[in-house]
Amino acid sequence: MQLNLAFIGFGTVGQGFCEILLEKEESLRQLGLEYKITAISDIAKGTIQNEQGLNLEAVLKTVKETGRIEETPGAKPGWNSLETITKSNSDIIVEVSYTDLKTAEPALSHFKVALENKKHLITTNKGPCALAFNELSALAKSQGVEFRYEGTVMSGTPIITLAQTSISYGNIKEIKGILNGTTNFILTEMEKGKSYQAALKQAQALGYAEAIPDADVLGWDTLAKIMILSNVLFKYPLKVSDIPRQGITDVSLEDIKKAREKGSKIKLIGRIKRERQKIQAEVLCERIPLTHPLASVEGALNAITFKTEYLGDVTIVGPGAGRKETGFALLSDLCQIYQRLSQGRKK
Amino acid sequence: MQLNLAFIGFGTVGQGFCEILLEKEESLRQLGLEYKITAISDIAKGTIQNEQGLNLEAVLKTVKETGRIEETPGAKPGWNSLETITKSNSDIIVEVSYTDLKTAEPALSHFKVALENKKHLITTNKGPCALAFNELSALAKSQGVEFRYEGTVMSGTPIITLAQTSISYGNIKEIKGILNGTTNFILTEMEKGKSYQAALKQAQALGYAEAIPDADVLGWDTLAKIMILSNVLFKYPLKVSDIPRQGITDVSLEDIKKAREKGSKIKLIGRIKRERQKIQAEVLCERIPLTHPLASVEGALNAITFKTEYLGDVTIVGPGAGRKETGFALLSDLCQIYQRLSQGRKK
Repeated sequence: MQLNLAFIGFGTVGQGFCEILLEKEESLRQLGLEYKITAISDIAKGTIQNEQGLNLEAVLKTVKETGRIEETPGAKPGWNSLETITKSNSDIIVEVSYTDLKTAEPALSHFKVALENKKHLITTNKGPCALAFNELSALAKSQGVEFRYEGTVMSGTPIITLAQTSISYGNIKEIKGILNGTTNFILTEMEKGKSYQAALKQAQALGYAEAIPDADVLGWDTLAKIMILSNVLFKYPLKVSDIPRQGITDVSLEDIKKAREKGSKIKLIGRIKRERQKIQAEVLCERIPLTHPLASVEGALNAITFKTEYLGDVTIVGPGAGRKETGFALLSDLCQIYQRLSQGRKK
Repeated sequence: MQLNLAFIGFGTVGQGFCEILLEKEESLRQLGLEYKITAISDIAKGTIQNEQGLNLEAVLKTVKETGRIEETPGAKPGWNSLETITKSNSDIIVEVSYTDLKTAEPALSHFKVALENKKHLITTNKGPCALAFNELSALAKSQGVEFRYEGTVMSGTPIITLAQTSISYGNIKEIKGILNGTTNFILTEMEKGKSYQAALKQAQALGYAEAIPDADVLGWDTLAKIMILSNVLFKYPLKVSDIPRQGITDVSLEDIKKAREKGSKIKLIGRIKRERQKIQAEVLCERIPLTHPLASVEGALNAITFKTEYLGDVTIVGPGAGRKETGFALLSDLCQIYQRLSQGRKK
C-alpha cells in the first residue's frame, strides 16, 4: 500500500520523523507500507510540493543548510497550510505546527480541514487535543478517517496506545504522572544540591528549557497533558479553570531536604481521579515515597501510574520529549493507521 | 455481536475471568459485545455444556461449594477437552488448563485442535507459547482466526499488547525484566533481613510459592517467559538449552548486604539481547543500581525494561500474577478480538 503524507509544520519533530522514515524505509517496505511526502508547508521555512513525492534526503539537507526548504532540488512551489491540506494528493496529514494552549489555533483549523476532507491525521500538537478533542474525534469518526496523537503525551512512550487498548478495559480509577521533563530535570538537579536558578540555567543550556520557561515551570505543559489524558481516558473535557495548578518555582532546597528526611522526593505531579462519574484533576508538587516507582524517575524522564480496578497500579516510565523520541510517536501512529487500513482491505 | 466461549480448564484464572465477565457484563454490552459460556471442561472439576449458554453465577457458586461443576443447575453433561473444542458451538476457546514446560501437553493439542477448527483462541498457558509459538501463529494466520496470550507474561499488565503495537516499530535491542513475583517477593523480604528459608516460608503461607517451589526459585518460570518474549518480539524460538539459568537459592544475606553497600539490589533478571541478527538470552541474579526503575520493583510486582532504538529505555511495572490480574488478561484478549471482528464487519 502506498500512503502519501503532507506536513503542516516542519520543525524539530517533523524533521526527526523524516529522519526515522528514511532510516526505516526498508523495514516499512517489508511490512507492505510505502510512503511518499508530497507536500510540506511551514510558516517560517517555506512551502513546497511535488505530487510524485519530494526527495526527503534533499529536503533535510536543504533545511539544515539554509534554514528553509524552498531551494530543495526537484521541489515545486507549494501552498499555504490550508491549501496544502486540500490541494495536495495526500492521504495523511502530519500536523506538527506550533502549539497554542489558549485557542489551539491555527492548528485547530488545520485539524478540522484535514478531517473534513477525509484525510487521516497524525499529530504531536497538544493544543487541539487538549481543547477540542471530543469534537475532533466525532468528526474523524463521522468521516471514516483515523485521528492519532501518540506524541502529545510522553513523546513516543506508548501511553495513548496503552490507554486505548488493553488497559482501558479495566476501570481506570486514577492516573498520576510526571509529565514534564524540564521540571523533573530541575527537581532532580536540586536533589543534588543545586539552587532552582542554577538548575534552570543548566536546563536552558541543555536545550530542555526555553528562555522564557513559564510553560514548563508554572505547570502549564503538565496541565495540557492532563486535559488530553482526561479526554482520551475518560471522554471528559476538563477546562483550564477546572484544574488547580502549581509550578515548581516555589520549591526550595529546604523543602527537598525535608522531603528526603521523610523518605520521599518532591515531584511535579499531574493527577486525574475518577470517583463514580466525577472527575477531579490537579497539577501540584507532591512528596512521593522512595518506594513508589515514580520516585526513581529522574532527569528528563517521564512516567505515568494508572490505578486500575483489576491490575492495581501499572506504571510506565519512558522519555517525555526529544527530536527522535517524539518523531517516533508519529511513526507509531502511521504504522497503526497502515495496519488498520490493510486489515480493512483483507476482510 | 454475540460470542460463545468454551473453557478448557477451570482453575483460579478461569474462575477469576468469569467473575470479571459477570462484573463487566453491562459495560461489555455497551461496547456491543454479548458473550455466552456454552461449555466448560476441566480434568478435575468435571465437564458441562449448554448450547444456550450456562448460567455463569450458578457455575461459580457450584464450584465454590462442591469443588466440581457438574451439579450446576441447568447444565448438561459435557465432553472431554478435545470434544469440547470441536462439538461445542463456541467461537472462542479459553485455554486455561495446566502448564507443562517440557512437552506443553495436553495444552498444545488443545491449541492445535482449536485453531484447526477455526476457533479463536485466548490463553494464559505458557507451555505452548514458549515451545511451539511460531507453528501456532502460522496456523492461526492460515486459518484466519485470532490467537492471543496476554496473560502468559506479567498477567494482565499489557506487555504483549505493547510488544505487538507501538513499541515494536522501533527496533527493540534488549529486554530485561523481573518476571517472577515469587522470587521477587523472597528477595524483597531478604532485603529486610529475613533468611532465604524464612522468606520462602512466608511466600508459601501467602500462597505466592508452591510447596515444591522449584519452578519459581530455580528460574524455570522466568525462563519460560523469556522464551515467550523472544517468540513474540523477535520471532526467534529459543530452546531451553540456549538459555543459561540461575535461580535465587544461592543468594545469601551477605550478597544482599554487599550489593546494598554498592548502591544496588539483587534481582532475578530475565534478559534477551539482540545484536545484529543474533539473539542471546539468560536468567540470572544481577545487581541493579538503585537509580534504575527495576530496583524499586518490590514484593510480588513484576517489570520489564525495553531498550529501544528511538525511545531509549521504556519500563513497565505491574502485577505479575493473581486471580483477577490474570483473569483480566483474558478479558483484554477477548475485547481485542471483538474489536478486530467488528472492524472487519464494518469495512
